[in-house]
Amino acid sequence: MSIDDLVEAVLSGKRRALARVITLIENEDPKADKILSALYKHTGKAHVIGVTGPPGSGKSTIVTRMTAEFRRRSKTVGIICVDPSSPFTGGALLGDRIRMQEHTLDREVFVRSMGTRGHLGGLSRATSDAVRVIDAFGKDIIIVETVGTGQSEVDVVELAHTVIVTDVPGSGDDIQAIKAGIMEIADIFVVNKKDLPGADKKVTEINAMLDIDPNMGMWRPPVILTNANTGEGIPELVDKIEEHMRFLVETGLLKKKGLERSKEELEQLMKYKLTRELLMKLQGTPEYEEAIQKIAERIADPYTVAERLILDFLVKFRE
Amino acid sequence: MSIDDLVEAVLSGKRRALARVITLIENEDPKADKILSALYKHTGKAHVIGVTGPPGSGKSTIVTRMTAEFRRRSKTVGIICVDPSSPFTGGALLGDRIRMQEHTLDREVFVRSMGTRGHLGGLSRATSDAVRVIDAFGKDIIIVETVGTGQSEVDVVELAHTVIVTDVPGSGDDIQAIKAGIMEIADIFVVNKKDLPGADKKVTEINAMLDIDPNMGMWRPPVILTNANTGEGIPELVDKIEEHMRFLVETGLLKKKGLERSKEELEQLMKYKLTRELLMKLQGTPEYEEAIQKIAERIADPYTVAERLILDFLVKFRE
Repeated sequence: MSIDDLVEAVLSGKRRALARVITLIENEDPKADKILSALYKHTGKAHVIGVTGPPGSGKSTIVTRMTAEFRRRSKTVGIICVDPSSPFTGGALLGDRIRMQEHTLDREVFVRSMGTRGHLGGLSRATSDAVRVIDAFGKDIIIVETVGTGQSEVDVVELAHTVIVTDVPGSGDDIQAIKAGIMEIADIFVVNKKDLPGADKKVTEINAMLDIDPNMGMWRPPVILTNANTGEGIPELVDKIEEHMRFLVETGLLKKKGLERSKEELEQLMKYKLTRELLMKLQGTPEYEEAIQKIAERIADPYTVAERLILDFLVKFRE
Repeated sequence: MSIDDLVEAVLSGKRRALARVITLIENEDPKADKILSALYKHTGKAHVIGVTGPPGSGKSTIVTRMTAEFRRRSKTVGIICVDPSSPFTGGALLGDRIRMQEHTLDREVFVRSMGTRGHLGGLSRATSDAVRVIDAFGKDIIIVETVGTGQSEVDVVELAHTVIVTDVPGSGDDIQAIKAGIMEIADIFVVNKKDLPGADKKVTEINAMLDIDPNMGMWRPPVILTNANTGEGIPELVDKIEEHMRFLVETGLLKKKGLERSKEELEQLMKYKLTRELLMKLQGTPEYEEAIQKIAERIADPYTVAERLILDFLVKFRE
């Protein structure tokens, strides 16, 4: 299929075309940029929701239940499961993911897993692009779920309008420490497994932390108790998600976030494209191999060599 | 202090100079590169050990015990605690870290925490540079411990000669899934908390996984049972670490790894420096702000704008 045909097929709601474009994005196919460029003006309509939290807090089940609730409210849904530690992609691989298959029978739900392939930063860029294509495809709601809680997860969920941070009663200190970095990006907290002892205590703890947050804006993140296994608390969660979007629109924050995201994205794209340009010129040349050898032998140092190679690249560009 | 004085002070073993240079690295101070460049030829002597694993597997305690054992063997030790989810840095912040303070009374142990500051990829670069300075400073052993298990952690530990992956009996499926990505980078497995039920089962599981590993090389990762609280198994662990280094030297893999690391590092440095150059030229200019505005309003798309700005940058560089 030509680029124009693929663009047309995505815009007219062909699921296979959507899946194919996301694969092109993952493979860093040069066609992907042209397609994304053509689709861009059809984007900006979806409500993008990020879901993150420590291992074992039931993220997948919450996402499955949220999806069912959104469908009940006649919203179409796209789901991206991001697993930065997995080289696998394109399918449902983890046990938890199997539950999501209940939605794959529903033509209005599109589910996709994305793993890490290639270098640092590649995953958040690929995820951001995939969100964009699903947006152009016409899904009302796009849920980005991450496995794990590292920096890459923070980068991934930061592309969302509404960030949900999940937790469970009685999670240990180590997990608390890891969570510290994602606490501040939460718009909504979910304390899942409310049937476990300590659920109310956990809600109190989060609220206590919010009480002393010096950066608290006009939106105070609500803390929702759920039991994703039974579905308890999920309608309230979806109510809060919708309320958060109304808040973003009414306060003008949606527009502000859009501007910030445009800037961030432009910078990421430039970084990516510029370095690709440089490395394509260098890789495989004898000069480059020799420089690496000298660095390994401590005859040259990488800081000086990097400066020189960059200067060469910039100076020689026009020749 | 001038750059030359700082370089001199680090090389002559002044701890305050070492701490100060690492702060310059974290702050992306232009002086840092010059110092690193001057120190580079004094590096390549330390044995760098990465320690990673799921939350709650006792990484900090293991690192503390390992350090005591290395000291008993008359080795000097540097420790970097990397927490990609924390914006904090420069001090021992987490509860677990307090235990490490027993070593801070020992002048031959240098402990430093590093958190995330700035952008993606910045942390692994800063950690790599900090390792280098501690190497030039003269520590025999440098331990890089990470909190969490995301992609950034994998990048961080990949700079190590020997990677230790920690685990505990009975960790859940969710944690298993997260660990999948770090399993393959392990040179040594540690099953900690051997007093808990299921410790032997966990060892069997890891060995069964290793039995079917198609990528197994000449080194089969040993699985060590420890109880870091009591110190059990730690001498065996340190024996295996030393054995792994002898293996690397004897097989020529150390040299090969050094070459690969030099290449990786040169590329990372070039990426970083080149992008900084571009963004410094663009940020704050009216043309740049206008481009961002147009992207946010969907009048322009980021893919096309990124291409144009990069071309402008490259073409105009010589003017």
